[in-house]
Amino acid sequence: MFTHLKNESTGLTTCLIPASTQDVGSSCGNGLEKECPGKPDQKPLELYGVGGPTAMFSTDSPYLSSRGRIIKWFWDSAEEGYRTYHMDEYDEDKNPSGIINLGTSENKLCFDLLSRRLTQSDMLRVEPSLLQYPDWRGHLFLREEVARFLSFYCKSPAPLKPENVVVLNGGASLFSALGTVLCEVGEAFLIPTPYYGAITQHVYLYGNVRLVYVYLDSEVTGLDTHPFQLTVEKLETALQAANSEGVKVKGLILINPQNPLGDIYSLGELQEFLGFAKRHKLHVIVDEVYMLSVFEESAMYCSVLSLERLPDPQRTHVMWATSKDFGMSGLRFGTLYTENQDVAIAVASLCRYHGLSGLVQYQMAQLLRDRDWINQVYLPENHTRLKAAHTCVSEELRALGIPFLSRGAGFFIWVDLRKYLREGTFGEEMLLWRRFLDNKVLLSFGKAFECKEPGWFRLVFSDKAHRLRLGMQRIRQVLEGKSQVAEDPSSCLNQEPSGQHR
Amino acid sequence: MFTHLKNESTGLTTCLIPASTQDVGSSCGNGLEKECPGKPDQKPLELYGVGGPTAMFSTDSPYLSSRGRIIKWFWDSAEEGYRTYHMDEYDEDKNPSGIINLGTSENKLCFDLLSRRLTQSDMLRVEPSLLQYPDWRGHLFLREEVARFLSFYCKSPAPLKPENVVVLNGGASLFSALGTVLCEVGEAFLIPTPYYGAITQHVYLYGNVRLVYVYLDSEVTGLDTHPFQLTVEKLETALQAANSEGVKVKGLILINPQNPLGDIYSLGELQEFLGFAKRHKLHVIVDEVYMLSVFEESAMYCSVLSLERLPDPQRTHVMWATSKDFGMSGLRFGTLYTENQDVAIAVASLCRYHGLSGLVQYQMAQLLRDRDWINQVYLPENHTRLKAAHTCVSEELRALGIPFLSRGAGFFIWVDLRKYLREGTFGEEMLLWRRFLDNKVLLSFGKAFECKEPGWFRLVFSDKAHRLRLGMQRIRQVLEGKSQVAEDPSSCLNQEPSGQHR
Repeated sequence: MFTHLKNESTGLTTCLIPASTQDVGSSCGNGLEKECPGKPDQKPLELYGVGGPTAMFSTDSPYLSSRGRIIKWFWDSAEEGYRTYHMDEYDEDKNPSGIINLGTSENKLCFDLLSRRLTQSDMLRVEPSLLQYPDWRGHLFLREEVARFLSFYCKSPAPLKPENVVVLNGGASLFSALGTVLCEVGEAFLIPTPYYGAITQHVYLYGNVRLVYVYLDSEVTGLDTHPFQLTVEKLETALQAANSEGVKVKGLILINPQNPLGDIYSLGELQEFLGFAKRHKLHVIVDEVYMLSVFEESAMYCSVLSLERLPDPQRTHVMWATSKDFGMSGLRFGTLYTENQDVAIAVASLCRYHGLSGLVQYQMAQLLRDRDWINQVYLPENHTRLKAAHTCVSEELRALGIPFLSRGAGFFIWVDLRKYLREGTFGEEMLLWRRFLDNKVLLSFGKAFECKEPGWFRLVFSDKAHRLRLGMQRIRQVLEGKSQVAEDPSSCLNQEPSGQHR
Repeated sequence: MFTHLKNESTGLTTCLIPASTQDVGSSCGNGLEKECPGKPDQKPLELYGVGGPTAMFSTDSPYLSSRGRIIKWFWDSAEEGYRTYHMDEYDEDKNPSGIINLGTSENKLCFDLLSRRLTQSDMLRVEPSLLQYPDWRGHLFLREEVARFLSFYCKSPAPLKPENVVVLNGGASLFSALGTVLCEVGEAFLIPTPYYGAITQHVYLYGNVRLVYVYLDSEVTGLDTHPFQLTVEKLETALQAANSEGVKVKGLILINPQNPLGDIYSLGELQEFLGFAKRHKLHVIVDEVYMLSVFEESAMYCSVLSLERLPDPQRTHVMWATSKDFGMSGLRFGTLYTENQDVAIAVASLCRYHGLSGLVQYQMAQLLRDRDWINQVYLPENHTRLKAAHTCVSEELRALGIPFLSRGAGFFIWVDLRKYLREGTFGEEMLLWRRFLDNKVLLSFGKAFECKEPGWFRLVFSDKAHRLRLGMQRIRQVLEGKSQVAEDPSSCLNQEPSGQHR
């Protein structure tokens, strides 16, 4: 249930936070780990299916604090798979046998539209006020634009207010800041799994906040249920278990549309989850970073900001960013909407460390206010392309007889490859992942999302058709045992798996 | 010596970190505070001469963690003076009786040059790679440019290397990241005072790192000495005192050119300080954020990167940013140079939370590579304007018979107003500061820089001549007792002082 850190191969259980760094009592206070190792350089830190011996040894630095070593360890392990990909990146002309990346959740379908819009002359404005120290909440002109934008696209019953908006350099920073200002060291947020696993480090690296997992599974238990369905009952069970083990839960994280499932919560579900949180006085962080990437017309998406009345407005905090919906993860623009001024101000105080350029703030205001372009050019074209890419991949999966969750939102398909594992272990899942990488296609394995069932993979489809076709061909080769690389694990490329699944 | 937190008016001593938040033992382990308060909402947090009752009460939020309340408190107190200024900002046409800001360290002299350069067509380039997830150390093209730039302007004996460069969104973030990866919770850096006081929160808010003060004073003790001179002897004394009180010191922060003194360390001094650090295995963070703002030709500035051989290269970490030298504090661009790859990678790992837009990275690379513009347009003109502004203010100070430190670097003059205090207390210093603000001129008082002698003020001169003249006129009115506001403290505007001195 908790972020306990089990070495799958040895059964060794270690603790995330070494005794020398932090308050081990609360950090390990889940009743599952009775002994904590002394130093990170003496004990392996096996986390979330990432990392390995090389990363372990490289954390042995006499120059870093113990938390510095853990912070570096996250880089070493997470970046290892990413490095492998970058050293051999696919390029149609220059490196056609390079690795196809179907692992990173980026929308690569609309760079032409974005580039055309962002290079228009209205984007290059330099005023003294943009070059001076900003209001750390974000320039007022931008917060006003964000409020108007969210009012319109979230369908809020009343206009949203600029004073409830805080602007910063992306969703990762917002998780870091919210974790720190809402939780004491060692306290936790509930999160349904599988989930976008990077949140683990976002709340932990600076904030020392933990995640308590609400494990979902693929089993369908009744007519009205669907795989990996979140219910209030599951939330209650997870919360009670955490309480009984002495872990203080301060909030609930909901990702809607969900990553990696692509699920959309119905209005009724949303209200139930918010009601649960209100009963337990839990904050709710609603990550709506894919809200405009619902490409299936029949999908009924409700932003939490569309509710007529929030059950607990002072504890409801909404995240949005341009990374996904505008396919610009490199632009670093995110925003918080909360009616709670204490939370808004505390996050703003940390925005000294999460600030974005005044020039970018100006550009984003220009972009968000250009409704003609968004509504008549960008969104329709983006949705058409997402749908076509989704169709391309899902048809291929059907042809292969591979089960998957077919949803109409996000950039990914949650694929059930359990039947391709020789046994249902995460070790086997990792071997399959390695075979894909050996055959030059990068996916994300389920363990990186803390999926409790080995054998699920996230496959990102928001890429150009020729790359998708080639990627799917390489996946097919592996699954049909026709890849160029042997099945013997010892022949695998000498690299560690990556938790890379941004 | 330490960041102990004394309420000057009541004599009440409190501790920065309430018992419920952190390891109080080490946080308060300076032997000066035997009792720590329980909760921040029950006890006042009197820090660095900023804040007051209003700020105190507003930190009483049931929604925030105890550290969240402290984080918010920093905003409430620091922003209060800033808000006062922004509500009544001077404008030549629209608000000629508004407040003149000679408190914020920004260079407002070159917006015309910057605006012309930053709006050239080469600045607006949008490529897919700039819109995608970056290398968190910074794009390679930018790190290469930074390495070339620093090699040239720091006069490094050999070319600096891109792999030693990490790029992020400003110096504040770099202090936060370095503090976290180098120190455990409650450990400390040595810093000579007076110093740029915001560093306190930069290392504390996320990192829980403290500062141990090396107090300098204005007394001149010999022929070869100057006021506020840092010596190895003073460093040794401060370090030993910290050790004897159980405070673990992990590093030394040097600001060169110094803020607020404007001092420049000589080559010999630099080598001595680095030698001291090496003997004690201390990291040295050298903040060179004003290195190109040395406007006096006779001043001999040496970057630490110009040394033929660093005494302890693995523990020497250099900061630079465009905020001051290119007058763009709103652009949010800073950089670390360190040969220590463990430190570079650990900081890079935290750069997920300190990232800057790919579009800005491209613009900064264009700017830094444009040596013709920098050398033939920007720097000569900037230095000429800085020098003229400095002359204008220093002549006025001389005419008033006010002692000050006359240096040839930075944007500020360190002014000795001790003779205008009725008695030598920080309470009196604050009253004088308030009289300035009441007379519509904002300065920074010495307590905000932890100057140990009440009565020193930092006066920023890097502003347009008409604003400087008017600001100086208002200062003169106050000092000559001719201001429009009464001397009686009870008549002061109802606002709290600001630590605002960015």
